[in-house]
Amino acid sequence: MPDTTNQLPEDIEFIAYIDRLKTVIRANGLFDGSRDENTAEHSWHAAMSAMVLSEYANEAVDMNHVIQMLLVHDLVEIEAGDVPIYDVDTLIAQEEVEAEAAVIIFGQKAAKHGERLRALWDEFEVRVTPDAKFAKAIDRFLPFFSNFYNKGYSWLPYDISVDQVQNSIALIRDGSTRLADIAEAMAEIAVRDGFLGK
Amino acid sequence: MPDTTNQLPEDIEFIAYIDRLKTVIRANGLFDGSRDENTAEHSWHAAMSAMVLSEYANEAVDMNHVIQMLLVHDLVEIEAGDVPIYDVDTLIAQEEVEAEAAVIIFGQKAAKHGERLRALWDEFEVRVTPDAKFAKAIDRFLPFFSNFYNKGYSWLPYDISVDQVQNSIALIRDGSTRLADIAEAMAEIAVRDGFLGK
Repeated sequence: MPDTTNQLPEDIEFIAYIDRLKTVIRANGLFDGSRDENTAEHSWHAAMSAMVLSEYANEAVDMNHVIQMLLVHDLVEIEAGDVPIYDVDTLIAQEEVEAEAAVIIFGQKAAKHGERLRALWDEFEVRVTPDAKFAKAIDRFLPFFSNFYNKGYSWLPYDISVDQVQNSIALIRDGSTRLADIAEAMAEIAVRDGFLGK
Repeated sequence: MPDTTNQLPEDIEFIAYIDRLKTVIRANGLFDGSRDENTAEHSWHAAMSAMVLSEYANEAVDMNHVIQMLLVHDLVEIEAGDVPIYDVDTLIAQEEVEAEAAVIIFGQKAAKHGERLRALWDEFEVRVTPDAKFAKAIDRFLPFFSNFYNKGYSWLPYDISVDQVQNSIALIRDGSTRLADIAEAMAEIAVRDGFLGK
């Protein structure tokens, strides 16, 4: 459906702008441990996971809505960067940085799409709806699973202990008991095999 | 909704398997020209573009369906690899390689999700529905736009001429006249400025 206001130049400028998410490096590795992951490819992996794992949500979810939320959930990192999830002090300070980033991205860069995209991000952040709880569960399950798979690629360098992953497991459990049970089993093996601290 | 058949282990094995799409390197660069793009991050960018550009489709599209199609459209590259879109001879041979890859991925790796995911890939490949035409338009517009933005990152090394991008423009036009008009204007500037051959 052609628009009549010619906002296409603004819209494609936003498409060029969000390309930068591919250059945001996370404190997490690929499953094969070959390199650090970037936030754009993580967001793809999370959205794909929603397509495959939705039946394991604690409550019925709208899969398409979860996918949309996961596609945009880390856009603020273009301006704010990524903070390791076990770095609790920085994470708290990061909330303010991300709020400022959200104003830039959703208030300016996204042009007329800002309000809709911001609503998705806000929903993800406040984590009240079943969709948001499940999206967060996926977001936390993936780095957990990759660390299990590659035997502590990002746990070992940060000297992470099983106590420090309890918050992640709780967030996973809030959206998916099934995934949380698996994460707990993984943590047990990881401690036994020495790539997650006691 | 918990399942009762315990297919969760197979499902999360598929999540680990598709991580490999992050290691498939495309003959295309990031918008800032800093490095080659991988197929997972490209798929995220394409899905995000569907969220922003759907109003520019020639016919009304189901945005969520376009997003799902773009998330899975290049999964076969995990087994088949990427072929540069201007390498026409190899592209034809590639179709057979991708068909075999589809059997592995959708027939085996994706377990019970294979049929649903394969239907999305088939729809994208045959390009008959408005959703598929628009998804393809996005898939071809993005590398076009990035080459315009970074002044020929993947056009110059392959010595690409304006004749060779006509097929891409036609595919874009089939899904979105508006995006095709922009692509043509970009091609004109690129030829004038010498990063696309006459």
